Amino acid sequence: MLNILPRIRIPLRCYSAVLTARNENFAKVKQSDIMAFENFLGKDGVQKDDISNHTTDWTGQFKGHGSLVLYPKSTDEVSAILAYCSKNKLAVVPQGGNTGLVGGSIPVHDEIILSMNKISQQFAFDDTMGILKCDAGFILEELDNKLAKHGYMMPFDLGAKGSCQIGGNIATCAGGIRLIRYGSLHAHLLGVTVVLPDEQGSVLHLGSDIRKDNTSLHTPHLFLGSEGQLGVITSVTMTAVPRPKSVQSAMLGVQSFEKCCEVLKLAKSRLCEVLSSFEFLDDAIMECLKTNLGLHPVLNSPTPFSILVETSGSNEDHDMEKMSAFLDELLSKKLIVDGVLAGSSADAAKMWKLRESAPLAVTRDGYVYKHDVSLPLNSYYELTNVMKERCGDLAKRVVTYGHLGDGNTHLNITSSKQNENLEKLYVSILIPILLLIFRMYPFLYEWVVAHGGSISAEHGIGQLKLPYSNLGKESEERLLTKKLKNIFDPNGILNPYKMI
Amino acid sequence: MLNILPRIRIPLRCYSAVLTARNENFAKVKQSDIMAFENFLGKDGVQKDDISNHTTDWTGQFKGHGSLVLYPKSTDEVSAILAYCSKNKLAVVPQGGNTGLVGGSIPVHDEIILSMNKISQQFAFDDTMGILKCDAGFILEELDNKLAKHGYMMPFDLGAKGSCQIGGNIATCAGGIRLIRYGSLHAHLLGVTVVLPDEQGSVLHLGSDIRKDNTSLHTPHLFLGSEGQLGVITSVTMTAVPRPKSVQSAMLGVQSFEKCCEVLKLAKSRLCEVLSSFEFLDDAIMECLKTNLGLHPVLNSPTPFSILVETSGSNEDHDMEKMSAFLDELLSKKLIVDGVLAGSSADAAKMWKLRESAPLAVTRDGYVYKHDVSLPLNSYYELTNVMKERCGDLAKRVVTYGHLGDGNTHLNITSSKQNENLEKLYVSILIPILLLIFRMYPFLYEWVVAHGGSISAEHGIGQLKLPYSNLGKESEERLLTKKLKNIFDPNGILNPYKMI
Repeated sequence: MLNILPRIRIPLRCYSAVLTARNENFAKVKQSDIMAFENFLGKDGVQKDDISNHTTDWTGQFKGHGSLVLYPKSTDEVSAILAYCSKNKLAVVPQGGNTGLVGGSIPVHDEIILSMNKISQQFAFDDTMGILKCDAGFILEELDNKLAKHGYMMPFDLGAKGSCQIGGNIATCAGGIRLIRYGSLHAHLLGVTVVLPDEQGSVLHLGSDIRKDNTSLHTPHLFLGSEGQLGVITSVTMTAVPRPKSVQSAMLGVQSFEKCCEVLKLAKSRLCEVLSSFEFLDDAIMECLKTNLGLHPVLNSPTPFSILVETSGSNEDHDMEKMSAFLDELLSKKLIVDGVLAGSSADAAKMWKLRESAPLAVTRDGYVYKHDVSLPLNSYYELTNVMKERCGDLAKRVVTYGHLGDGNTHLNITSSKQNENLEKLYVSILIPILLLIFRMYPFLYEWVVAHGGSISAEHGIGQLKLPYSNLGKESEERLLTKKLKNIFDPNGILNPYKMI
Repeated sequence: MLNILPRIRIPLRCYSAVLTARNENFAKVKQSDIMAFENFLGKDGVQKDDISNHTTDWTGQFKGHGSLVLYPKSTDEVSAILAYCSKNKLAVVPQGGNTGLVGGSIPVHDEIILSMNKISQQFAFDDTMGILKCDAGFILEELDNKLAKHGYMMPFDLGAKGSCQIGGNIATCAGGIRLIRYGSLHAHLLGVTVVLPDEQGSVLHLGSDIRKDNTSLHTPHLFLGSEGQLGVITSVTMTAVPRPKSVQSAMLGVQSFEKCCEVLKLAKSRLCEVLSSFEFLDDAIMECLKTNLGLHPVLNSPTPFSILVETSGSNEDHDMEKMSAFLDELLSKKLIVDGVLAGSSADAAKMWKLRESAPLAVTRDGYVYKHDVSLPLNSYYELTNVMKERCGDLAKRVVTYGHLGDGNTHLNITSSKQNENLEKLYVSILIPILLLIFRMYPFLYEWVVAHGGSISAEHGIGQLKLPYSNLGKESEERLLTKKLKNIFDPNGILNPYKMI
């Protein structure tokens, strides 16, 4: 049976066209432009051929039509580029590691790609205050390795850490598996150097290089999650966190989603200061991991839900004791039916392999409709059940994994190949009315918003969610963001056709 | 001897006049306005007499000339007020608990005072996700007490907690003694409801009520530290933190400032996840506490510097063990000459009494020049020494205490009464030139900025630091903040004559 939820039906006109027409106010790149860029960047700063790895995202989902990649090596060169592009009405898309999941750093039409790959010279770390200042093009893992020498680490961890860049992390307000412990990037950002797309290519040093500065508007935070639409971040100052000396993991088997929430509540109380991850996997993704990748659960008894808990601390004995007591309490309170505390790093790796392989496992089904949404916990898993019922046999699997501790679910719906019937609309006749109802979209996002959630928890809007970006937003808020965009980018040349 | 530091001399013209003339574009409050306010707020929502506790700050340092206090009870009433004031060009100053230290919530001329005291109805707390949503007029301590019942607490603690309001805390981006552990309010803010001072009194719901929402610009963060100049915050959504079950304190005696920094570095490594405060007191404030309040140090051997370390955790045995091992290591490495771990809450209270009484102790000298600045640690205590030398015998004391773990120093200079010679300029004749040199101001703030610091670490700009607010700011940044202010408050009626 397919649900019809009239209370969350939203007029179709609220969805903008997915394919935005090229803005003809933007100029097209001419030979004279290329010569100008070569003049101030050098020939090695301008790439015209073989740029498909910049015009296509790593998933192959988004393909743009840019014909030019620029590689500035400094803030000054970014300034020269943006001043030139602003004067000549050339649209620009900034691009970091190109690891995004929503097509935010891929040109939609013929935007010039401004690669940050070569802006990775400046690096400084104060190992008493734990403050890092570095160029935006540094790769996350590279930064983390540098900090490790000082006993510190980056306060977030992503699957893409080997290629994503810190500037892009800021621009997307990257989340990851340790947000429950260290908070979002708002908790860490202190300052940014940004270049604005105006006729001067204005360079702004916003915020500061110290822990506390309350002398002006806290403008650096506007760049967190701005998706490259306000300015180009060339340098970042942020706090790092002491590197834990002990990391413990445990896998828990839970019989109901309600009990998963009880486990979370108890974890916050009992593991408190050492709790660093609280990840969720349902039995459908466990089955998928087994079938598609040959990865077997670490718990003997199958349960509808599995939770992966991690602690990070400074004393292994203390952390093990806390974790053991926590597991004992869970068992005695019958909140879990099974639980394993990793006795070695190999054991822990086996548990994490399950969670980290989930995105790969689903792709092996053929085609995946991936989702990254936030929900209040009382609706978190209800969405999975609603979508299972709604998609019926058309879906191969409806699986859920995610950062339960943050209310963030990665609901994935798979099929052997892209299936318009599954994805889009179906027709139902209720005498005397012919109903056109969308099966997955926009239904899923409308449902999320109607239940107090967010249609993008951590991946952003980019191109993928643009048609739904107005959902749950009031017109006053949309107007405000447009006004803000206009202050930073009066000609609208920076990353057009995207979030704002 | 008085230092002359030409490298940080800044043209006097950069300091705006402290006494800003009244902006004659603003209307004066008329009887018809009062009737209009009484009409939509009721008579008990409008106060005309005995308003001195709203026009004067609690320190008695700032006195405004407002003649009217409005007490809206809801967001809608704030909206009606701001729409009316916008249409009628009436200037407004929002006021929370009136506990600020820089005169930010006190009228400068005849601005109408918009008290938030009655906006404290809505309160909701999700004790699984740890998310609090409440009206802006709630008092910090009241919120903390409510959260205690759920095993949670507010992630910051201030001396003014008994009267400051959460809306004001957001507007000033309040810091406090636990920032080293829980981060600034940027780490916790999720959403705000704000009313803009436009002709519609626009109500904006920015951000969200869930932990992760990456679907728009993160505009709530613009209101952190905005000092009531962008809009009136009427509701706040933020995260709370699990309440620690064990709090341990230790007082350490240190011989040199360099060793204090070494102790901090080691504390971050060894106490790591449980470190919750790292406070600093020099021997001058210890002497002041003894002389003026009869409070004696808890350490037997006097040392030039004392450090108060606090841990907060979930297991008392573990925390005591960590703290003991930390103290042993400090002693064996000769980083401290003495150290006491509080054996009871009475012992801990005695330690904290010293730190918390410091602001009171200095006032007993007669007159205090208070400062709240941030500095990189290599300049942190140098400022104290420079000011001691510069003020010479004119100062009764130059004392320093503060949040060393955040690089935040509260340098206080006392004298028996206000002393213009100490405060302002002196004349020196170097043949053949007559030199006019400022002894304390702007010298102190120029020195801070020249050494990479901030002239306001946590108190803000308000009225007190307005003359120096351009220091260390580039013109592009100032221009940006003015443009931002103009978007939110096109008529400039909200909290005029202040930061922006």
